Amino acid sequence: MKHEIYITGIGPGEENMMTGQAIQALEESDVIVGYPLYLKLLGDRFQGKECLSTPMRKEVDRCRMAYEKAMEGKKVCLICSGDAGVYGLASLMYELSGEYPDCKLTVIPGVTAANSGAAVLGAPLNHDFCVISLSDLLTPWEQIEKRLTAAVEGDFAIAIYNPASRKRSDYLQKACDILLKKASPERACGYVENIGREGTKVGVCSLQELRNLKANMFTTVFIGNSQSLILDGKLITKRGYRL
Amino acid sequence: MKHEIYITGIGPGEENMMTGQAIQALEESDVIVGYPLYLKLLGDRFQGKECLSTPMRKEVDRCRMAYEKAMEGKKVCLICSGDAGVYGLASLMYELSGEYPDCKLTVIPGVTAANSGAAVLGAPLNHDFCVISLSDLLTPWEQIEKRLTAAVEGDFAIAIYNPASRKRSDYLQKACDILLKKASPERACGYVENIGREGTKVGVCSLQELRNLKANMFTTVFIGNSQSLILDGKLITKRGYRL
Repeated sequence: MKHEIYITGIGPGEENMMTGQAIQALEESDVIVGYPLYLKLLGDRFQGKECLSTPMRKEVDRCRMAYEKAMEGKKVCLICSGDAGVYGLASLMYELSGEYPDCKLTVIPGVTAANSGAAVLGAPLNHDFCVISLSDLLTPWEQIEKRLTAAVEGDFAIAIYNPASRKRSDYLQKACDILLKKASPERACGYVENIGREGTKVGVCSLQELRNLKANMFTTVFIGNSQSLILDGKLITKRGYRL
Repeated sequence: MKHEIYITGIGPGEENMMTGQAIQALEESDVIVGYPLYLKLLGDRFQGKECLSTPMRKEVDRCRMAYEKAMEGKKVCLICSGDAGVYGLASLMYELSGEYPDCKLTVIPGVTAANSGAAVLGAPLNHDFCVISLSDLLTPWEQIEKRLTAAVEGDFAIAIYNPASRKRSDYLQKACDILLKKASPERACGYVENIGREGTKVGVCSLQELRNLKANMFTTVFIGNSQSLILDGKLITKRGYRL
């Protein structure tokens, strides 16, 4: 029989934002593998399990760790924040799968920050939308620029992940400058920090104001399409219903 | 005190793919409002509640029904499949909110078909991606074409909602023809029908083959970016880790 590994999206952090499937996978596992912060977010409930982690940038090692534990006969849950298939480790696990033919992968989807953040802001992604990460650790900046340009040319609503980090403090500003070539400085925008975690911060603003936002690794940024608006403090992208 | 309405994404259908928050909102509600199929998907658990629906294209009436029930002092849960803010009724509820100042809206996010379908296929959206609906009921077809073109020019992975209906049987074909102007006919693609419901159908194929897929209202279609690949039957979009 094959060793099953659950690649599990745990949502933003709070247990009540996980799906029943995700909780079940965690409960059934002997070993939980994840980034240290995400293991911490799981809280006390799964403390009895063997919990293993690797630091940031050691994602390949983390995936191998999950495979190795499964090969020992342990039931393994590899956790990712949000959804495991949105900037998570699902594809990397599949890339490595040829080396571990006795393991079977199952991806358990979760609520990604685009959707959990949108819910806090109102309904900013309620029409066609794009999700773009500004992190250039694994993607050349030119590719990111090209996607930002395409997104604004297609008049998509946009959710931006990883808008800044200590080393990339001006990336959101650079991204806004690219968008401002095609979009009005008044374009309706918003942001959410620490979605579904302690210290949630939320705000709406114009694209011009967004340019000066002090974002960090835990901020998700939302840029409306040309028809989006701020209504009573909420960021809304209309679906097009006639009232 | 304001009357609270929960606008709740129930995920694909199975109860174990709902979040704890969504189940809690349903449990606490006196009235559940939704499209008939989605009420049916909830199953027996919430059968004791007052369940109200309107047919398709009567979404404005459905939203008003939710508000009216809340104004009567009932706790109301308006349900949407997937996530309430992805082609759901969240933005329409906010648009109408000025008429019901005594009501307070809370959006509860859910797992949308882009993510639940991706999990079944492997990891097709594991880098920047777009979500596009092919339904032209509320959006001019020219706008949809423009977005498809922008999506392929930006080399996004793409999730397509509403790829076809009885009246729009050739829309997926038209969409593929637009993508084929920039993308290789060998571009890696996939589709999932009835995600998380009875009769799930799943497949991977090339973009050329996708053109001939008989899709329906319950199909979600995935088009990889230029680097995506089909690996042992799974559709994978790499994140860029060096192995």
